[in-house]
Amino acid sequence: NVSTGNGCDQVSLLLRLCEERHFISPGAFHARTCVYGPLGSDLKKNILGQWWTASIRSRARVFGINTSVHTRTCEESVMIVNYRTVQENFQQDSLTREEALRLFFQNSMSLRSNLLQGALQQYIQALELVSRKLPFGLAEIGLCHQSTDQSFGHSPGCISEVTESSLVWFCSPRTSSQWIDYWARQRLQWWRKFALGPSDFSLCDVVEEDLKDGTLRGIKVLYKFPWGLETLETLWSLGNTELQKTYQGTHSKLECRDGRKVVVPHVISISGDMDKGMLAYLFNSLKQQKKTDSKQKQRTVLRLHPTLTPVKVALDMGRGSNSELRQVCEGLLEEFLEEGIPTWPGYLDTLPLSLENLHTKYDEMGVLFTVLVSETTLKNGLLLVRNRDTTVRETMHISEIKGFLLRYIYASENL
Amino acid sequence: NVSTGNGCDQVSLLLRLCEERHFISPGAFHARTCVYGPLGSDLKKNILGQWWTASIRSRARVFGINTSVHTRTCEESVMIVNYRTVQENFQQDSLTREEALRLFFQNSMSLRSNLLQGALQQYIQALELVSRKLPFGLAEIGLCHQSTDQSFGHSPGCISEVTESSLVWFCSPRTSSQWIDYWARQRLQWWRKFALGPSDFSLCDVVEEDLKDGTLRGIKVLYKFPWGLETLETLWSLGNTELQKTYQGTHSKLECRDGRKVVVPHVISISGDMDKGMLAYLFNSLKQQKKTDSKQKQRTVLRLHPTLTPVKVALDMGRGSNSELRQVCEGLLEEFLEEGIPTWPGYLDTLPLSLENLHTKYDEMGVLFTVLVSETTLKNGLLLVRNRDTTVRETMHISEIKGFLLRYIYASENL
Repeated sequence: NVSTGNGCDQVSLLLRLCEERHFISPGAFHARTCVYGPLGSDLKKNILGQWWTASIRSRARVFGINTSVHTRTCEESVMIVNYRTVQENFQQDSLTREEALRLFFQNSMSLRSNLLQGALQQYIQALELVSRKLPFGLAEIGLCHQSTDQSFGHSPGCISEVTESSLVWFCSPRTSSQWIDYWARQRLQWWRKFALGPSDFSLCDVVEEDLKDGTLRGIKVLYKFPWGLETLETLWSLGNTELQKTYQGTHSKLECRDGRKVVVPHVISISGDMDKGMLAYLFNSLKQQKKTDSKQKQRTVLRLHPTLTPVKVALDMGRGSNSELRQVCEGLLEEFLEEGIPTWPGYLDTLPLSLENLHTKYDEMGVLFTVLVSETTLKNGLLLVRNRDTTVRETMHISEIKGFLLRYIYASENL
Repeated sequence: NVSTGNGCDQVSLLLRLCEERHFISPGAFHARTCVYGPLGSDLKKNILGQWWTASIRSRARVFGINTSVHTRTCEESVMIVNYRTVQENFQQDSLTREEALRLFFQNSMSLRSNLLQGALQQYIQALELVSRKLPFGLAEIGLCHQSTDQSFGHSPGCISEVTESSLVWFCSPRTSSQWIDYWARQRLQWWRKFALGPSDFSLCDVVEEDLKDGTLRGIKVLYKFPWGLETLETLWSLGNTELQKTYQGTHSKLECRDGRKVVVPHVISISGDMDKGMLAYLFNSLKQQKKTDSKQKQRTVLRLHPTLTPVKVALDMGRGSNSELRQVCEGLLEEFLEEGIPTWPGYLDTLPLSLENLHTKYDEMGVLFTVLVSETTLKNGLLLVRNRDTTVRETMHISEIKGFLLRYIYASENL
């Protein structure tokens, strides 16, 4: 009973939903930049957290780093300058145009467009960490500025900001081809792990004529958006040219041990666009399902993975003695937040909604459980708990709810 | 038996330690930007995570947001431009200097210097979340670019990058003065919670003549660095002028409910420099202590709070049958990482160190426990476990170690 509708409907439906349900700030979607509301901001945080765990925390030979957004100026780059400095430079009549322009470039810095260069600059220090033994990796999540006309939803020629994930893997030239395959499988597996429709994520080899000089192989992780395939992540096997470019003339400093041999390592650069990745998960989890319990045709649900979904529990109340019900809600909220359960304080919303509209709202927010406090709760301590995915409503005693939620969330995070 | 030494010694000691122990990348400290190694990157991550939990996750009325680093251009600002566009503009002879300059400003964007404006722009959308009921807050962590000559360690006139934390609190004009006091206490408490020497963190009121127009009050959170007091965080009670500036001429859209009255809220802006905060914690936790078990004069320990310290456990091995010991280490590492215990794979380092030097290294890294696998382990399963803070070495069976570490880490995170 799952229908995905046609592509165009999907896009406008998701846009509407993301704006109404505080994932993306209205208007931001078509602008140059992504501005996220509370739910979008938490969803992105959860995705980045999972990436960090999978790439660094759970691996002994990958180290996290944090490099500067400023980089050396080159002809492709996005530069930053002081407003005042520019004005002063160009209003000095004593300088020729050429001189003013030269001065301008001298006084300006550039912003990185990717994280590869930063990692390569940390290579020498990192060698100490691993006693010059291969393989090892340097990983980072950071903001990049890209001057591009291809990026989704941006007008041509503009500068867009992207949160990029990067893993730079240094390995023996002998095994670099196996390693890129290994990482491609790992990355695909990671994307699919949190997907409702895993088959929408796929791998694709970059054909040889599209490889830059010195690049040995390329693999892309693609997502099937309603408007077509887009690249979420790319893996490049770069050989050792980039590393040697970064450390010109210091070949011996670059050397590592590969068993008993001494080699200059090959570099595999894996970088993902996490804003696009977030959008992929939003589309992937958007489902329109036939309602089983009503005459309305269908319900729209954002079936985000339990680990990723920003709000695990919504606390709401039925009509009745407002102040007493509210007190119960506040007590529960405090208990949940203390345990670190991300909870939406729905009872603060004083706009009265029917139960049906309440469920619609929380389904569109991707909330796993709706906990409803009612007059009954005051009498006998019973709550109504609704599951997003099964739509089953269960009655549960107030003393059991916290344990129930913790068990469920813990289980889903250890899937 | 704790001596802090004099200020100058402290600074050079910490610098040396941060560079050698992979907190800060060599050279980066005196440059314009902060580049962190694996330990620094994890320490910062832990500090930001704790801030997020304390400010958003554990509060029902504070919502996280994620705004753009691009902002409207103003005379104070740091701008970003395309290298190519600038070159093309200024080489067009058909344009006068003035025209070229105007075109330049039209084509450029600015980078934010703080997070306040982004939060104010999300105010109208946020009203929906809270049914226009005060108080509530919008919080964010993000990169800012500041064109300043005051910032620590930066040469005058340059553009520096800072990771800022921001909580913008909207409250009734009636209670804004109480709220700024409440938040100042909360923030001081938070900084002190993770400090070894809490008294080095203090509050200070901003005197009236230093307040900008429209600002009602200001409070700073200070840290006593060896070279003097510096501001880690500032709290401004801004009245409603900033909010009205952001939404010119739309007074009624700004209105909120304060009990039965309708008011335009006051804004309290709380922003912290988290890079400087990290440095404060590093200085705060640096201790030189007399050794109890040796003739050497003192040991240097980075006694970072158990919750913040990047590496909880170091796994190392004594001399002996390398490949067998290594296998035991690898097995333990996998177990620890699976449980999410941040572990340093010290056994990978093939440089043989004496036990004393090993402890020096891990003390300087702030590692809570050193687990030593030796020939004895192969015979009877016993490990040596050393505690950073007590320097006590305990013998423990290999089957008990994981449980012991988890209990300790869990307990310290719930202090």
